[in-house]
Amino acid sequence: MISLNLQNLFALPSAHGVQEAEWYEYGKKLPLFLQKVKNRKQGFYEILDEEDVIQNIEKFGASIKGKYSDIVVLGIGGSALGTIALRDALTQYISPRAPRLQVLDNIDPEAVEQIALSLALEKTLFLVVTKSGETPETVAQYFFFRQKVEAEGLDIRNHFVCITGSKGFLRQEVEKENLTSFPVPENVGGRFSVLTSVGLVPACLIGIDIRALLSGAREIRDQFLSEDFKINIPFQLAVAQFLVAQKGKTQHVFMPYTNALRSFANWFAQLLAESTGKINMSQKNVGLTPLPSIGVTDQHSLLQLFVQGPNDKLIIFVAVETWSTDALIPVPEDTSSWKFLRDTSFGTLLQAEQKATADSLTEEARPNMTLSLPSISPETLGALFFLLEGAKAFLGEFLEINAFNQPGVERSKILTREYLSRKK
Amino acid sequence: MISLNLQNLFALPSAHGVQEAEWYEYGKKLPLFLQKVKNRKQGFYEILDEEDVIQNIEKFGASIKGKYSDIVVLGIGGSALGTIALRDALTQYISPRAPRLQVLDNIDPEAVEQIALSLALEKTLFLVVTKSGETPETVAQYFFFRQKVEAEGLDIRNHFVCITGSKGFLRQEVEKENLTSFPVPENVGGRFSVLTSVGLVPACLIGIDIRALLSGAREIRDQFLSEDFKINIPFQLAVAQFLVAQKGKTQHVFMPYTNALRSFANWFAQLLAESTGKINMSQKNVGLTPLPSIGVTDQHSLLQLFVQGPNDKLIIFVAVETWSTDALIPVPEDTSSWKFLRDTSFGTLLQAEQKATADSLTEEARPNMTLSLPSISPETLGALFFLLEGAKAFLGEFLEINAFNQPGVERSKILTREYLSRKK
Repeated sequence: MISLNLQNLFALPSAHGVQEAEWYEYGKKLPLFLQKVKNRKQGFYEILDEEDVIQNIEKFGASIKGKYSDIVVLGIGGSALGTIALRDALTQYISPRAPRLQVLDNIDPEAVEQIALSLALEKTLFLVVTKSGETPETVAQYFFFRQKVEAEGLDIRNHFVCITGSKGFLRQEVEKENLTSFPVPENVGGRFSVLTSVGLVPACLIGIDIRALLSGAREIRDQFLSEDFKINIPFQLAVAQFLVAQKGKTQHVFMPYTNALRSFANWFAQLLAESTGKINMSQKNVGLTPLPSIGVTDQHSLLQLFVQGPNDKLIIFVAVETWSTDALIPVPEDTSSWKFLRDTSFGTLLQAEQKATADSLTEEARPNMTLSLPSISPETLGALFFLLEGAKAFLGEFLEINAFNQPGVERSKILTREYLSRKK
Repeated sequence: MISLNLQNLFALPSAHGVQEAEWYEYGKKLPLFLQKVKNRKQGFYEILDEEDVIQNIEKFGASIKGKYSDIVVLGIGGSALGTIALRDALTQYISPRAPRLQVLDNIDPEAVEQIALSLALEKTLFLVVTKSGETPETVAQYFFFRQKVEAEGLDIRNHFVCITGSKGFLRQEVEKENLTSFPVPENVGGRFSVLTSVGLVPACLIGIDIRALLSGAREIRDQFLSEDFKINIPFQLAVAQFLVAQKGKTQHVFMPYTNALRSFANWFAQLLAESTGKINMSQKNVGLTPLPSIGVTDQHSLLQLFVQGPNDKLIIFVAVETWSTDALIPVPEDTSSWKFLRDTSFGTLLQAEQKATADSLTEEARPNMTLSLPSISPETLGALFFLLEGAKAFLGEFLEINAFNQPGVERSKILTREYLSRKK
């Protein structure tokens, strides 16, 4: 379904690219690393076929059909980025009569107010999403909108649904107020949770086929669990990223050639940054820096740096093979200088530019590779989510870190409490 | 108007931060570097008080008032990013009866179709923006929408306005078809052009006070032209960025704590990447990599990498001091664990988190600095645009490169023509 083309990487001199032999050699370690990943006891690859979870979500979706004009997700980080990616990638698949889906992933007071002003509360459903149930930004948003809903004399049980773990403040609220809730499994971290209730509930409520999403993910999950290097694309991708990083190319640009994946690139950024940016077993600070980008647009923005700046990047192109619509560029007869665009569609031009950009980078010994999707659909998107999650799990083992925690952000949370308490 | 706080940078050990003395020492070179910048004969600092240009734009804006429901910019890179930044930063300042402003900055066939479907062509004005007049993506979009407009029997002179240089295909079209046009000065590059017609025309058409925008920019321009290090904030910023980069921190994160500047971060990314990513006078590949980010959101996404990953980044925070609206977080009386949020507004929480995040980075010897704006307004936005443009001009001289060209992207353009011609 998704193919990974490493030819441009193999074509480079060994200081900058990856030798095919070196890549195969590393591939032999697959069984070892797969075992290490399994030893982490993470759930992201086990949650794709829980029929009861899916049915609960679908039942809830059916039960509220037509009741709301607006869905608002209150959540941040892993509770928001996957949902935004889903919504923006699958616009073509959202049913036209679906409620509008907004995601409030910041506490910017103007943004909070702007969303509040855009809503008719009696027709609004809030999804409060926090795995810990204790995220201050999300809890603050919940307090704010709850007060507004109560002030209008509405029953909060009709307007708040919680997606949260089994402990924490929000779970207590669910019990105290008898709110509808969906679970987040204990062993699935935020940035790996898009295919749990966290992403599936909002997706289902705007009419996206969540079974198709999961079926695409399962296809790659089966690769991910295979000990055969030739078919395990998540492992292949991780090996390529790791070997290039060993050669000093630690900035990994994610550059889809489709507007549909603009927001997806931000989901990828969290996944790569938060999974790999760690202190490893030898007390070394390691990690890969994600750089979200978009083609062809950024050929007119970032490409100059990729071509002539320091050779410290890997460009991961994402190409799409077919489009739901693709108009010809109507070049007027009397314009000789634009002959090369005649009988060319926008999609063909875009694909030619992607290949040209990749090849121009290769000529300058700049490592790049291409992931190809047959099209953008719930299936391929589910597959792409899982492919990148799986690759990150392996990358964590290569880097000798725990890809599933984030100990570095605690200090900022403690200082925030201190500064606010001091003011009082 | 804008202040630059370098205290966290000065507080670091010398391997990771900047010593205040070292920074002052470099500051002595200001007159020399200012002269070098002037020798480039670039126009971006001279175009801020051209009364005739401003009046032409305002006159045009007045003449079409109420005629259009939609403005669509056809443009890419420097022809699009500044306009998107302006629109998204100043939502509070856009007049409610202004036409909707969309920017089509890609040739993705689904995105092209989506915009086409969203328009009533008889009420739509297209701004075709390309300095060279030869950008294939923009010309292709122009052909496409021109055919649609003509197919409806409409006069293209009422639906296309060109913002372009004095030469090239689009300028010929202006002359042949007698289209309204606005100039882009020869000596102002795309990424430095937001304060020319490129950004001012669309801004004016949605009701933004372009005189306020320019007046803010002029305030910083006067600093920029001063030989006094103490008042030249663009030079101070450039020196800090450069000295940190010399210590291996070449990834410069732009992290505003306001949703208003989300898109602005992409404008900054082009400016930094395309200006600095070059082969320098010693044939070395140099350049700073921009990483657009957003607070507090990315504390739950990228911060883990910033704190514990390789120490190769500089975080440039942008803090906002006041908001147009700022609600209190209504913490219920019976929730003891959220006491620290009581009597706290969203803005106060956000500011506390910004400071906490900066301080937590400093504790880990991670270089960071803070730009503070009194608020988001046309004046402060104009100032911020110019501050960053001016700093990049100096940075180019420090790095011994020409900050104003982009020779590295030509090869991809040539290959695109080749691949498309070969198919025929």
